[in-house]
Amino acid sequence: MQTQTLKVSLDARSYPIVIGSGIIDDSKLIAAHLTSARVVVVTNDTVAPLFLERLESSLREVGVDVLAIKLPDGEQHKTWLTLNSVFDAMLAARCDRTTTMIALGGGVIGDLTGFAAATYQRGIGYIQIPTTLLAQVDSSVGGKTAINHPLGKNMIGAFHQPRLVIADIATLATLPERELAAGLAEVIKYGAIMDAGFFAWLEDSMDRLVACEPEALAYAVEVSCRCKAQIVAADEREAGARALLNFGHTFGHAIETELGYGEWLHGEAVAAGMLLAASLSARQGEISDQDVSRLAALLNRAGLPTKAPAFGAKRYLELMGHDKKVHQGKLRLVLLKAIGQAYLSAEFSEEELTRVLQDIPADD
Amino acid sequence: MQTQTLKVSLDARSYPIVIGSGIIDDSKLIAAHLTSARVVVVTNDTVAPLFLERLESSLREVGVDVLAIKLPDGEQHKTWLTLNSVFDAMLAARCDRTTTMIALGGGVIGDLTGFAAATYQRGIGYIQIPTTLLAQVDSSVGGKTAINHPLGKNMIGAFHQPRLVIADIATLATLPERELAAGLAEVIKYGAIMDAGFFAWLEDSMDRLVACEPEALAYAVEVSCRCKAQIVAADEREAGARALLNFGHTFGHAIETELGYGEWLHGEAVAAGMLLAASLSARQGEISDQDVSRLAALLNRAGLPTKAPAFGAKRYLELMGHDKKVHQGKLRLVLLKAIGQAYLSAEFSEEELTRVLQDIPADD
Repeated sequence: MQTQTLKVSLDARSYPIVIGSGIIDDSKLIAAHLTSARVVVVTNDTVAPLFLERLESSLREVGVDVLAIKLPDGEQHKTWLTLNSVFDAMLAARCDRTTTMIALGGGVIGDLTGFAAATYQRGIGYIQIPTTLLAQVDSSVGGKTAINHPLGKNMIGAFHQPRLVIADIATLATLPERELAAGLAEVIKYGAIMDAGFFAWLEDSMDRLVACEPEALAYAVEVSCRCKAQIVAADEREAGARALLNFGHTFGHAIETELGYGEWLHGEAVAAGMLLAASLSARQGEISDQDVSRLAALLNRAGLPTKAPAFGAKRYLELMGHDKKVHQGKLRLVLLKAIGQAYLSAEFSEEELTRVLQDIPADD
Repeated sequence: MQTQTLKVSLDARSYPIVIGSGIIDDSKLIAAHLTSARVVVVTNDTVAPLFLERLESSLREVGVDVLAIKLPDGEQHKTWLTLNSVFDAMLAARCDRTTTMIALGGGVIGDLTGFAAATYQRGIGYIQIPTTLLAQVDSSVGGKTAINHPLGKNMIGAFHQPRLVIADIATLATLPERELAAGLAEVIKYGAIMDAGFFAWLEDSMDRLVACEPEALAYAVEVSCRCKAQIVAADEREAGARALLNFGHTFGHAIETELGYGEWLHGEAVAAGMLLAASLSARQGEISDQDVSRLAALLNRAGLPTKAPAFGAKRYLELMGHDKKVHQGKLRLVLLKAIGQAYLSAEFSEEELTRVLQDIPADD
C-alpha cells in the first residue's frame, strides 16, 4: 500500500497527515517533527502491549529520549484526575517546553494528550498516532482537545493543533468489531454531510470495510481526513463550517451523558444521533423518508445502532441544552438538505424536534 | 485625571488597556467588548465587598445578565480545585461560548479566570479588571494564564489574550501597604530591564508612590503597561524578548515554592530574586557593585525585602531546575548588562551562580 500525505492548511500551524500501513514506528518521520530529542508517549493499558515497545525502541534507535505514560483505558478516565497524573509524571521528569508529546491510542488518549500539550507550561508540541478508526478519521485531525466534566462531555479543552498525524491502517487489524463500527459512524457522517459520491461508495463498499480490508479502509480514512482537513482549514475554531462536523453529535452527547460515558461508544451514540437529526430534517420536508432509510440501512450494515435509547423527550432536551453548540441560549442543530449536504440551523421547529424524540420506541 | 488608552498590538487578538480613575464600572466600555449580554464576574471574598456590587449594578443597568462567582482569597487557592468550582457554576448556569468572563481582583483571580476562559468549552472571551498594582502592571496584560501545581507555580496554563483591560487607579487606595510594595517590585523591574530613564524617575518619585499619590501611580502604571505591551507585541508566546520579563523570577519562583505559596508575596520574592540576578551580573563583571546598590536601595525604599531567604544553594538550584525557563535541560537566566538593559543567558558561570546563592546571609 502506498503511503499518502495530506496537509491541513493553517498558516504557521499547518501539518501533515500521513496515511499508510506499518508506519507507526517511522522514527525518521517523527524525529523530523520534534523540537528536542525528548518525547513523552501517552498511551493506555490496552494499546501499550500492542505498539508501545515497537515505537519506543525505534525512537531510542535514533537517539530520542522517551518517557512512557500508561493510562487506564476508557472514556471514564478522560478526567482532570487522569490529566493531572500526566502532569505529575512530566514535572517529576522535568520535561520542559521543548518536550514533544505523542498520543498513541484512540480518541480518549488523543483528546487528553492534546489537552495536556495545550496546557503544560502554557503549551508544547504534540503528535497524534491514532490507533482506532474513529481517531484516525475524526479526533486526531483538527486540534480539538478536551477532557470531560460531570455536567458534559468535552466541556473543558482547547484548540491546539498537532505537529503531525500518523494514521497507520495496520493498527486497525487489532480493533474489536464494535470499535471499528464506531469509527465507521464518523466515516458515514462525512458522506452524509458533504460528499454524496462517497456516501454511494460506502453503500457499495460497506462489506469490505466491515471485513477490515486494508485497501478499502485506507481509502475511507483518506477521504474522511480530506473532508475533515478541508473543513478545519476553512474554520479552525468552529465559528462556522466546522459546526457541520457535529451532525448527530448534539443528540449523541445527550445519549452519552444520560447513559454514563462508556456505556455506548461515541460512534454508536453519534449513529443514533444522526438518525434523529435526519428524521427531524425529513419531518421538516428537507430530505425524503427514503434518504432517512438509506442512512439507517448503511448504519445498520456497519453494525451500528439505529434506535436511540428511550429516556424521554424532556430529558433529551434538557441534556441538549448543556451542549457547546448552544448559541446565546438557542439550541442549534446540524440538519440535512440532502444526502451530502448539511447546514446549521437554529430555525428548526421545536415542536417537530420534541415529536422526533417522543417517537423513539421504548427500550425492550 | 485623564483616562489613557494603550493598545497591545497582536493582529486579530489586539486589545486596549484603559487606565484611569473611577472607571471600574464603566459599563459602556465593558458592553462594547461583549459577544452577548451575559457575563461571569469572578472575584474573591476580599475584593467582592469593595467593588462587586458597583460593577454588577452598572452592568445590569445596561441590560447585561451577571453571574458572580466569589472565590476564597489567596495564592494557595490558585488550583485545579478552585478552577473546577468555577466550571461547575458556569455549567450549572448553562453559560455558552458567547459568555464573557470578567476577572475582578488581583493576579490570582486574573490568572485563574483567564485560564478558565481559555479552556471553558475550548475558549471564550474575558476582560481583566485588575485591582492590585501588581496585576495592573503585570499579570493582567499579555494573556498569560495559569494555575499552580504542587511541583511548581503556573505550570498548567495557556496563552489567551483578554479582550480589554481596565486599570482603575482608584482601586489601589484600598490596597494594603505590603501589596502595594509587591506591585512596585514589578514596576522597578521594567526600569531595570528596559528603561533607565524610568528607573531614574522611580528613584525621584518612590516616596510619592509609597504614599499612594494617584498621579504618580497612574504614570507608573502607564509606563509599565507600555513596556509590557511593547514586549508582548514583539513576542506573544515567550519565544524571545518576553523572557526578559522574567528578570528575578526564576530565583523568585524557587523562593515561593520553598516557602509555600503565599508566605512571601510574589513581588517580594521577585524583589529578592532581582537582587540575586543583579549580583550574578556584577560577579560576571557586567554591571558595577554600585548598580546593584542602586537597585537594592530602590527596592528598600519601596518596602521590599532585599535579602533572599537562606535555604541553601543546593535547594535553590534544584528548585530552579523545575522552572519553565529551563531550555533543553539548561537553565537560562535574565541578567543585566546595565540598569535599563537586560539579556537572556544560558552562558553564565554556574560556579558564580552557586557562590551568589551561598553568599545569602543566614536568616535571623
